Amino acid sequence: MFGRIDHIGVAVEDLDGAISLYRDRLGMPLQHRETVEELGVEAVLLEIGDGHVELLTPAAPDSAVGRFLERRGPGMHHVAYQTDDIESALDSVRASGLHLIDEQPRTGILRSRVAFVHPKSTGGVLMELVEPAKDR
Amino acid sequence: MFGRIDHIGVAVEDLDGAISLYRDRLGMPLQHRETVEELGVEAVLLEIGDGHVELLTPAAPDSAVGRFLERRGPGMHHVAYQTDDIESALDSVRASGLHLIDEQPRTGILRSRVAFVHPKSTGGVLMELVEPAKDR
Repeated sequence: MFGRIDHIGVAVEDLDGAISLYRDRLGMPLQHRETVEELGVEAVLLEIGDGHVELLTPAAPDSAVGRFLERRGPGMHHVAYQTDDIESALDSVRASGLHLIDEQPRTGILRSRVAFVHPKSTGGVLMELVEPAKDR
Repeated sequence: MFGRIDHIGVAVEDLDGAISLYRDRLGMPLQHRETVEELGVEAVLLEIGDGHVELLTPAAPDSAVGRFLERRGPGMHHVAYQTDDIESALDSVRASGLHLIDEQPRTGILRSRVAFVHPKSTGGVLMELVEPAKDR
């Protein structure tokens, strides 16, 4: 159903401070920075092997990441599994009885197509399915 | 400093139920199950691409994972970054001013060598460094 771990998403209050930690102190190259309107976040991708760390900070009032920060504080927010066919992956997840937050894919960072699975059906883990853009 | 994401660690209250979710519903092959005495956990590794999901449940009273479950409930517990030289990685982490939980590596699952970095110095993210056993 999934190819590999695409990234872990980390909720941060201070994006520049977090970049300094991951890029300058942990040595992960910064790949991309983008405000993702549809998700209400400012996001940064850093490279680690063939995967990424995605730093997320709220870019809109009442965003999901903002509510997460209020409730739990900064830390791991989600894990993203890569697929090359998100419709088929969504069908499989749906057929297995898990509860989707997104019945249809939304546009994520770097024009990827993403959908989230509700943590109530996955033992408290917010899972993202991500189909990267073909020319990424 | 780190090669790639080795695994994400997930704290669970019901290990068999979690195996059913990850193996049977999400389709990740089960690789290994082990009680890791030094960490006070019963752990299961499932395969996802060249990485893993590690399910963790307490195997001893007053274990770190047990305290995590009491405080936060089930969910993502840590992210593990792979290294082929954990002493060198620990030196780099130490030199960058981060606070180590383990000054010396401990024995993790499948005879890996592991050390944790304190989440207070990493924006709330519990990070594990892992050097797999050479013959793993």
